[in-house]
Amino acid sequence: MSAPTLPRVTIIGGGFAGLHAARALARAPAQVTLADRRNHHVFQPLLYQVATAALSPADIASPIRHVLRKVRNCRVVLGELTRVDLARRQLYFEDVAVEYDYLILAAGATHSYFGRDEWAPIAPGLKTLEDATELRRRILLAFESAEYEGSEDSRRRALTFAVVGGGPTGVELAGAIKEIAAQTMPADFRFIDTTTTRVLLLQGADRLLPSYPPDLSERARRDLETMGVEVRLNARVTDISSEGVRVGEDFIPASNVFWAAGVRASPISATLGVPLDRSGRVIVAPDLSIPGHPEVFVCGDLAAATSAGSGLPVPGVAQGAIQAGNFVGSLLSRELGAIARGKTAPPRPAFSYFDKGSMATIGRGRAVAQIGRLHFAGMPAWLLWGLVHIMFLVSFRNRVMVMLSWFWNYMIFSRDARLIIGNSRLNITLPRDDPVRPRPTETAA
Amino acid sequence: MSAPTLPRVTIIGGGFAGLHAARALARAPAQVTLADRRNHHVFQPLLYQVATAALSPADIASPIRHVLRKVRNCRVVLGELTRVDLARRQLYFEDVAVEYDYLILAAGATHSYFGRDEWAPIAPGLKTLEDATELRRRILLAFESAEYEGSEDSRRRALTFAVVGGGPTGVELAGAIKEIAAQTMPADFRFIDTTTTRVLLLQGADRLLPSYPPDLSERARRDLETMGVEVRLNARVTDISSEGVRVGEDFIPASNVFWAAGVRASPISATLGVPLDRSGRVIVAPDLSIPGHPEVFVCGDLAAATSAGSGLPVPGVAQGAIQAGNFVGSLLSRELGAIARGKTAPPRPAFSYFDKGSMATIGRGRAVAQIGRLHFAGMPAWLLWGLVHIMFLVSFRNRVMVMLSWFWNYMIFSRDARLIIGNSRLNITLPRDDPVRPRPTETAA
Repeated sequence: MSAPTLPRVTIIGGGFAGLHAARALARAPAQVTLADRRNHHVFQPLLYQVATAALSPADIASPIRHVLRKVRNCRVVLGELTRVDLARRQLYFEDVAVEYDYLILAAGATHSYFGRDEWAPIAPGLKTLEDATELRRRILLAFESAEYEGSEDSRRRALTFAVVGGGPTGVELAGAIKEIAAQTMPADFRFIDTTTTRVLLLQGADRLLPSYPPDLSERARRDLETMGVEVRLNARVTDISSEGVRVGEDFIPASNVFWAAGVRASPISATLGVPLDRSGRVIVAPDLSIPGHPEVFVCGDLAAATSAGSGLPVPGVAQGAIQAGNFVGSLLSRELGAIARGKTAPPRPAFSYFDKGSMATIGRGRAVAQIGRLHFAGMPAWLLWGLVHIMFLVSFRNRVMVMLSWFWNYMIFSRDARLIIGNSRLNITLPRDDPVRPRPTETAA
Repeated sequence: MSAPTLPRVTIIGGGFAGLHAARALARAPAQVTLADRRNHHVFQPLLYQVATAALSPADIASPIRHVLRKVRNCRVVLGELTRVDLARRQLYFEDVAVEYDYLILAAGATHSYFGRDEWAPIAPGLKTLEDATELRRRILLAFESAEYEGSEDSRRRALTFAVVGGGPTGVELAGAIKEIAAQTMPADFRFIDTTTTRVLLLQGADRLLPSYPPDLSERARRDLETMGVEVRLNARVTDISSEGVRVGEDFIPASNVFWAAGVRASPISATLGVPLDRSGRVIVAPDLSIPGHPEVFVCGDLAAATSAGSGLPVPGVAQGAIQAGNFVGSLLSRELGAIARGKTAPPRPAFSYFDKGSMATIGRGRAVAQIGRLHFAGMPAWLLWGLVHIMFLVSFRNRVMVMLSWFWNYMIFSRDARLIIGNSRLNITLPRDDPVRPRPTETAA
């Protein structure tokens, strides 16, 4: 095998940033490799819909190879990066070293339990498809176990869900859990009244959705409360156990705690030996490269970047990752093109984030959206949300009918993916001789 | 809590037999409980489509509670039966004892490795959704690992699939794997030519589909061979290891071995202390009750039943389970109705199996079907198969659009559920310094 003659560009991560970088490099004179530890790209904004059984994993994910099948200069590799050696320009996949000429790091973020990692198994978060099916399993098993619990106290605890964190994920998750309990489940159970399910949304800040305008934060709170979600602001979670959550002095018995509070950059950033911010993100130059390493770029949730236009931080949202990936891919494509033609590379521009707006669903017919100076809420915002996500998924999956059918099913309250896969053992004891505990009102039947 | 006044009918198993028994009991004066160790019913005839990434688990499964939500006298319980005490009329769920007045056992079947249980982890079978996602994971990882294998031998082994067993499951699985390799995958890979994938179907008997008429067996073999599947008849598998399969004296290097050869009744039958057949199935009376225990019925794959009409054994297929479940449910419903009205129960009829025919797909546009004396093959059989399964799924899921879209996608060769969930680590070593091993033809690019 002769040595490759084209510069080797390696992209780490098949999320929004990595995929868009690969696509923008499609015509570059380079040998591009995209490595990810999973074989699939996940459409993260809809992960909570998998967790709440409205969509199947395959509806929001696609094999990275398949997404990039037409990008002929790009190879897709399944592997987990464990360390980067910037000085030697080497990547370590487990103990295998691999060289690069240019590197685009887009490994994303993971949960942060603010130093309380022992909470992780009790209060799982929502970043991957595995997380989403685990949440789905827990949510569905909660109702199953409540159906058999002997005492009123343990039944109440089984039917109490606490969502920690009042950003978009927390808001969407809390709303969806309340809807499952109130709309989808009641007819399926005989002993419990699932509409009495208690859903708490525990937000540390003084309003929900802190990145949104205050009026929309307020509207989200009101909508959630109308649906029956208990919203607690300025709620500092001080302890989490299998029995429940402690908020300041108040202990809330809850069998189901989900974490939507903090994110921290992928641990790969710590192996770089360069300045990081408090969340472990790499502090990048205006062109999104690592200062002193013009051959290494960082995009998406792994980067602490500042937008050249506004001087504001680039937010850790899908649009931020997409735009950064496009920016870096295009920049590098131009640069490599110039070098291949024997010219000097053009000066690098600075990355500017364009805020297309943001939107979060709260429940059916309820959402908040902000586009420039326009604020939407309620049904108009929700229809807008549906439209944008259908269009996004259709362009991504090319399955118009499935998407329409999803939106239709979603509108009519069906949640078809209510499967408990994996361990479905209940940690409860069936009352002896009586699996069929009659409801109080049914004893005389 | 007062004692229940209605007779307690317990159904074990939420497969075709159990669900149909519960539905047939909907108007019976009884307190019905259906227990299953999973929360979902699986449409088993399409499991192989989940294993081969054409459908998602949720497309072919539904929560048992939800399927039975309108059967108001039936409670659904999540629990695993470990033992039956026929004399005391007690069921043991782990160590919890529960009494019954009538029992319908429909716990189904599991794989049989003919005493070679050490083959189970190497050559998984296909009975549950977990099995199906595991097969999908292995099939997809096989292509991934072949992409990086250093030597031609190990690449060949990674791309060799051996399916053991030439019944409907084996035929459908072998055909679908060959189609994935030949139609779905080629564009996604850079280094391997997935069309060279070798798929072997190893059948112990002297023809495929032994329960079908010989001309259809022959047609299935021809169709599979046209597609490129190597069919071996009279092939006795004598050993299976992670290196490959031994068939008589011949060793076939294969990283992927799947088991579709034998079934054996659920181990629950062994706890009954009644006569079983060689596969562990309960030998039942003409009314499907256990001789000497008129209050206990066995249906579906757990029963060794004889059809009163033909005197032939009732086959272990979906129709056999559905008809037996309906039969037992209706019989018991009439009997309990008579008793409730103070009358004597009518004499019990004998169960007769009505053969509606059978069909198996081989690939797109290829299937075999037998309905009474009519034999179909090729495109007509395949369209028939599609129609029957769409109708079945639509009645089961009530999602016309999704099903049409599925059939459409299936026709145009899309396999959207190509997700590796769970462990996606490859058991291979990346060649040092070169994750991007150029194809021989690309080295000069």
